[in-house]
Amino acid sequence: MPASAIRKLVPFSDKAEAEGIKVYHLNVGAPDIKSPDCAINAVVDKCKNMHHLSYTNSAGLMELRKGMVEKYYKKIGIDVEVPELLIDVAGSEAFAVAMQIAADKGDEIIVIEPFYTNYQTFAFLNGITLRTVHTDIRQGFDIPGIEEFEKVYNPGKTKAVLISNPCNPSGKLFSKQEMLQIGEFCRKHDLFLISDEVYREFCYTDEPHFSAMNIPGCEQNVILVDSVSKRYNLCGARIGCIVSHNKDVMAAALKFAQSRLCPPVLGQYASIGALDTPQSYFDAVKEEYIRRRDTAVEALNAMPGVFAPKPLGAFYTVVELPIDNAENFAKWLLTEFRIDGETVMVTPAASFYRTPGCGLNQVRIAYVLEVPLLKRAMAILAEALKAYPGRTI
Amino acid sequence: MPASAIRKLVPFSDKAEAEGIKVYHLNVGAPDIKSPDCAINAVVDKCKNMHHLSYTNSAGLMELRKGMVEKYYKKIGIDVEVPELLIDVAGSEAFAVAMQIAADKGDEIIVIEPFYTNYQTFAFLNGITLRTVHTDIRQGFDIPGIEEFEKVYNPGKTKAVLISNPCNPSGKLFSKQEMLQIGEFCRKHDLFLISDEVYREFCYTDEPHFSAMNIPGCEQNVILVDSVSKRYNLCGARIGCIVSHNKDVMAAALKFAQSRLCPPVLGQYASIGALDTPQSYFDAVKEEYIRRRDTAVEALNAMPGVFAPKPLGAFYTVVELPIDNAENFAKWLLTEFRIDGETVMVTPAASFYRTPGCGLNQVRIAYVLEVPLLKRAMAILAEALKAYPGRTI
Repeated sequence: MPASAIRKLVPFSDKAEAEGIKVYHLNVGAPDIKSPDCAINAVVDKCKNMHHLSYTNSAGLMELRKGMVEKYYKKIGIDVEVPELLIDVAGSEAFAVAMQIAADKGDEIIVIEPFYTNYQTFAFLNGITLRTVHTDIRQGFDIPGIEEFEKVYNPGKTKAVLISNPCNPSGKLFSKQEMLQIGEFCRKHDLFLISDEVYREFCYTDEPHFSAMNIPGCEQNVILVDSVSKRYNLCGARIGCIVSHNKDVMAAALKFAQSRLCPPVLGQYASIGALDTPQSYFDAVKEEYIRRRDTAVEALNAMPGVFAPKPLGAFYTVVELPIDNAENFAKWLLTEFRIDGETVMVTPAASFYRTPGCGLNQVRIAYVLEVPLLKRAMAILAEALKAYPGRTI
Repeated sequence: MPASAIRKLVPFSDKAEAEGIKVYHLNVGAPDIKSPDCAINAVVDKCKNMHHLSYTNSAGLMELRKGMVEKYYKKIGIDVEVPELLIDVAGSEAFAVAMQIAADKGDEIIVIEPFYTNYQTFAFLNGITLRTVHTDIRQGFDIPGIEEFEKVYNPGKTKAVLISNPCNPSGKLFSKQEMLQIGEFCRKHDLFLISDEVYREFCYTDEPHFSAMNIPGCEQNVILVDSVSKRYNLCGARIGCIVSHNKDVMAAALKFAQSRLCPPVLGQYASIGALDTPQSYFDAVKEEYIRRRDTAVEALNAMPGVFAPKPLGAFYTVVELPIDNAENFAKWLLTEFRIDGETVMVTPAASFYRTPGCGLNQVRIAYVLEVPLLKRAMAILAEALKAYPGRTI
């Protein structure tokens, strides 16, 4: 089982917190922003008139599926019908199922590194090999030419390309041009394009997000993975969906869905309510994240020897630090370094890469704290970099 | 993908219902009994003070884990500690994870047929082969001597025995003697014993349910699969758990849990509340199911050529009918047979067996309707058996 580097830090943060140390958690993408009232009220309303909390259809409540199609996807220019959308147990189940539909044991999926660590976990669990196209922090994680995809394409074995856009962990936002290029590669080799767009609302450019669902000619290739977790700050609802114009994909997704009976019903109620979230909510959230991003990136780049690209999406940034080893540094922060009884927790970035040696001096910062807290966390990090025995400058 | 026989009937029932036909659903174990008020109220209370619906620990909320250990398991004589219990996304995730922990692709698990169809689905998805020990409807589905287990034991390949007690679909309740015998077999060959006890509260004998957790000497073998779905009529909460004294099992279960971040949080709140359900609730539910069982079994055995054993647990019974083929019969009920615009839906039993030819003239009846509705459903079934063109008497 991979991804252990991240999780193996948890006991140290637990221990520090048990000792009364305040730990600023820059390590997880757990937003602290209020869930929309309409989402929580919908749960309360449903509970008030509830006889018993029964199963729903395996594909989810029709009210939710219709609502997502009409109140959400239509509005953002993604044209899908109800049978092309199925409710899953959060984005986690959606991408796990998408990977299993696309690839059998022994097959390969191309991912762009750095990538979300749980892709590797699910690949491992299902005997799928991930092949990586590298993107570089110094190039702002831009997608390289398609020849880099061709290099890792393995005829007969490669079954899909898997992307996260905007990207966790790098904050990279794919341009329309990059998306069209990847789409063309998938069409050429008849590959699935699994597009994880759970951070779609968190784009900090004037251009609208370009969904894989809108790549012309890729209708049968694209499997969209989505979730209400980040969009509505409803991570605990555990509701996501899988969307595809490909009928065979949806038939297979339904079979997976039937095997676990139904998605969480109270979370489905919250998600139905969330569909009425006003635009003002999203505008305010986006403004807040821009403030946080700017706070974090400015503070980071002011630290000697730190390189922090300005992410255009999601709420993460991968940062190069002047240190020997990010895992040692992260552990040292939790076990040895304190300022006035406080420290910070960061995620070592090596787990987001497959290429050996990559990301060893990088960490992922999730800017999910309010600006004053984030400023304090950055100040602690700056002092830590000065004090760390393994600093390289 | 297996289990299609059951699901392939759904479009026919949907169609009948769309045409205004009333369908009595004897096909699914979806109880209609009121959820405990304390469970639903707990959700409302938590929602009232909620800022945002965040992730919980991957293993579930500590309040729920502690509550299950102290308020539930201790009370029923199962002695476990909090680290030996982890919250899963319903029993479905718990047994899927248990099977994956016990067996790798190419390995074998012994199940007792008839068995819950989704065991086969998960085995299939993970490249695990199920080997079956047959139990016979005419012997009340009693467990045969251990030599039948030895016959299907494949050294080096067999990794576990998987049982459901009380059993879905047969309603079989395992005696203490049978459990000890299976435990001894598992110990002898160093196999896991995955014990799905989600119907533990539905036992209709004076003897208490004997949990696999209480087989002496099997502490390192047993993986308990449990769920709040049936116990508290909270199927939609999607909360279950995996329990084991085996530390390696729990470490592996935690890794699976981390890969999907956390169990549904609103369902966890309902489950915390449910732990305060008074004993009177369970007594009333049990009495109601005994009435329903007796109603169903008496009506069934009064139909010419029908053989219905009296189940001692769960809320299902597998019944032999005087028909050529249960799948054809079930489809005919939905598409052709009506009395005053009403019909019934039953589950063909062949999907619960792996031995070819088994269960072809059997159906599973879930007695999850109130007595008056159940009587009406039985009257319709009786008439249907007279009118069915493929009847054998």
